[in-house]
Amino acid sequence: MTLDSTHDPDLRSWVASANDPATDFPIQNLPFGRFRRADALDGWRIGVAIGDQVLDLRAAQECGRWTADVAAVLEGLAGGELKSLMAGGPKPRRLLRSALSEALCDGSQQRGALQPCLLPQTAVALALPCAIGDYTDFYAGIHHATAVGKLFRPDNPLLPNYEWVPIGYHGRSSSIVASGQAVRRPLGQTKSPAATTPVFAPSQRLDYELELGFLVGAGNALGDPVALDAAEDHLFGVTLFNDWSARDIQAWEYQPLGPFLSKNFASTMSPWVVTLEALAPFRAPLSRPAGHPDPLPYLDSPHNRQRGAFDIQLEAWLQTAAMRAAGEPPHRMSSSSAAEAAFWTAAQLLAHHTCGGCNLQPGDLLGSGTLSGLRPEQAGSLLELTSGGKEPIRLPNGEQRTFLADGDTLSLRGWCERPGSRRIGFGECSGTIVAAPSPAR
Amino acid sequence: MTLDSTHDPDLRSWVASANDPATDFPIQNLPFGRFRRADALDGWRIGVAIGDQVLDLRAAQECGRWTADVAAVLEGLAGGELKSLMAGGPKPRRLLRSALSEALCDGSQQRGALQPCLLPQTAVALALPCAIGDYTDFYAGIHHATAVGKLFRPDNPLLPNYEWVPIGYHGRSSSIVASGQAVRRPLGQTKSPAATTPVFAPSQRLDYELELGFLVGAGNALGDPVALDAAEDHLFGVTLFNDWSARDIQAWEYQPLGPFLSKNFASTMSPWVVTLEALAPFRAPLSRPAGHPDPLPYLDSPHNRQRGAFDIQLEAWLQTAAMRAAGEPPHRMSSSSAAEAAFWTAAQLLAHHTCGGCNLQPGDLLGSGTLSGLRPEQAGSLLELTSGGKEPIRLPNGEQRTFLADGDTLSLRGWCERPGSRRIGFGECSGTIVAAPSPAR
Repeated sequence: MTLDSTHDPDLRSWVASANDPATDFPIQNLPFGRFRRADALDGWRIGVAIGDQVLDLRAAQECGRWTADVAAVLEGLAGGELKSLMAGGPKPRRLLRSALSEALCDGSQQRGALQPCLLPQTAVALALPCAIGDYTDFYAGIHHATAVGKLFRPDNPLLPNYEWVPIGYHGRSSSIVASGQAVRRPLGQTKSPAATTPVFAPSQRLDYELELGFLVGAGNALGDPVALDAAEDHLFGVTLFNDWSARDIQAWEYQPLGPFLSKNFASTMSPWVVTLEALAPFRAPLSRPAGHPDPLPYLDSPHNRQRGAFDIQLEAWLQTAAMRAAGEPPHRMSSSSAAEAAFWTAAQLLAHHTCGGCNLQPGDLLGSGTLSGLRPEQAGSLLELTSGGKEPIRLPNGEQRTFLADGDTLSLRGWCERPGSRRIGFGECSGTIVAAPSPAR
Repeated sequence: MTLDSTHDPDLRSWVASANDPATDFPIQNLPFGRFRRADALDGWRIGVAIGDQVLDLRAAQECGRWTADVAAVLEGLAGGELKSLMAGGPKPRRLLRSALSEALCDGSQQRGALQPCLLPQTAVALALPCAIGDYTDFYAGIHHATAVGKLFRPDNPLLPNYEWVPIGYHGRSSSIVASGQAVRRPLGQTKSPAATTPVFAPSQRLDYELELGFLVGAGNALGDPVALDAAEDHLFGVTLFNDWSARDIQAWEYQPLGPFLSKNFASTMSPWVVTLEALAPFRAPLSRPAGHPDPLPYLDSPHNRQRGAFDIQLEAWLQTAAMRAAGEPPHRMSSSSAAEAAFWTAAQLLAHHTCGGCNLQPGDLLGSGTLSGLRPEQAGSLLELTSGGKEPIRLPNGEQRTFLADGDTLSLRGWCERPGSRRIGFGECSGTIVAAPSPAR
């Protein structure tokens, strides 16, 4: 898509906090989420983040002045679900974005009507941005795939299919939780290499994975593949995504059909979906390392090569229980760039997913896979940062970690920043580990 | 559960076709499904199969005489979804079964009121029995796992984890279709061992897999495992399930994260859920081949050993387009016994699935994995029956098959039969292969 007035870096909002240079949610962002007043008993509502406020779209529908087509889009959201907006593809989303940008910008005549529709973000609870349908996790981070492969196969880290096939597998939807929800350490079967029999016990190698989540907008019919250059019309937006992983359970269970219980105890998603429109100023070329073949034709196009990637900066931060108790801030574990980390674009993942006829539906989720940078300190998981648990990380307060301990809070952050554009951010994607249930039975 | 009057083999129905010894749906069965009149525009309704008829439960709610608690259960089904009945666990299901058994049995005073609530099964379209939430496919058929493993690793067919871990992986829900819906041959990447690069083309090794589907009733909360002996209280019932598989796509894509596009183009489910109550007379001991260790304690109990399995006979039948054109009947490809084929019971699959805290929800599906018998001719897939495509099967009309051809119709059948019990069946699970879309783009 081309940039329009909603992307103007000089655009300012009458919501003062949206003009703070440090906010994730300036008027150029306008991400969607589901919220409810922390003190209210009524259901979830759709909102848009603006500065440190949420614009309640149901209230805005009633109080604002909207053209008939915008009012129709807002009416579809009144039930508290994003699905109708997602299913409509880019057109209604762009229409609503333009209308909201105009209504929230400095000098808008809607200020008086919409001011009562704002709630402080501190006064609301946030759910997952939509009900997740099917969830697929990909493995598009080539440096992650290489680093993890090296732990198992030092001489041959990348399997031969990696450079041809966007490797992915189906994940578990029911256990995807919103940021802030506690994550219980899983019990499971593990077997140490020296042991002859497995044990059933709490995981001792609990890890995080720094990923992006791509939410599907308009779906496709079963048996009807989506061509690469049409794929972005089926993407609604992007979130942060932490694919918590129990490495010891994974190592014992994953042959021959892939990870299962090692992944399905929880995944954490950030509550605000940043739309493809908000990301339009931050598109980047697909940056594949040299020495790999061109993709097969169904996964290749000039647009995808030149602008298929998203230039998103990513970080993972850890705060242990001791750090929290001492009032010490979180420690940055690593940072990386999504555009440099990913061997495949979101459009390639979606086109591949549908190439055999699989139908995607509004609210389906595609995980990117762990987006580790090229350098070891840019790794998006503890498995990589500690060389498979062999090299502990020393934290500023003297604590050490190979894997996550009970009480640890792991937070992902993400933002886009470029000269000539207003910085936009993704909000919080955070979870705290709580102890496993007793294994006795 | 103990057997009660609903299981009495001498119980007869005033619906004459239900007394036919060959019917899948005698009054002792009473499976649930979703139907609509083939000529009607209104939505799906919940029905119960009885002989060659469907009892429309919405109509029956209005026309029949029911106790208040049965009427409340029927009220929950009035919207055309099984979910409320599933979520309630065994109690409301047993209550409704008893009431329906009484109302449909010979001599019932409800005959006059309910007769108008019957529709011939030939006059209705059948959907999936419920909206499927998350779908997990297991690998519980040890003879299948051994036979497939032999094709890859002749000396070491079963991996070391198989006898300890109920191996499973997450599958795709959106592409699960009801019996009778055509299945389009998938396009996909494949690479022959001799080639240096893959090609993108229609699958040449399209296969079926003979499985059972276990539908989840009451769910569990995230982080809250279900103990083995409570697991059956979370199972609603059983269907036939064909996990169509593209073996050439699978071989190229499945390392290291498991099957993906090779499975997610379609899976076919039979439309009637046979409840755990209907299966109560057909429970069997867990029959594990000798030489394997006892399960870990969280997967072991006396009840599970003695009665954990289901004694279900299974068959796969093939009718090619040429056979259909010539009026020739389908050819039986194989037959097996679920109780003999499965290394793990449904309760073990469910207990394992939740042992790390993963939450199951009403309408979730657990596939058994391919239920091949011990002998080669009892195999539940063409991959096994043709030794990996090397030994074609000769059909009665002279045609040969290694894998499925366009126009082939593959049907699964299943039933339970024991002295002292009335035979019950699972109905039809059938799909016809249609040609792949053009790969040109």
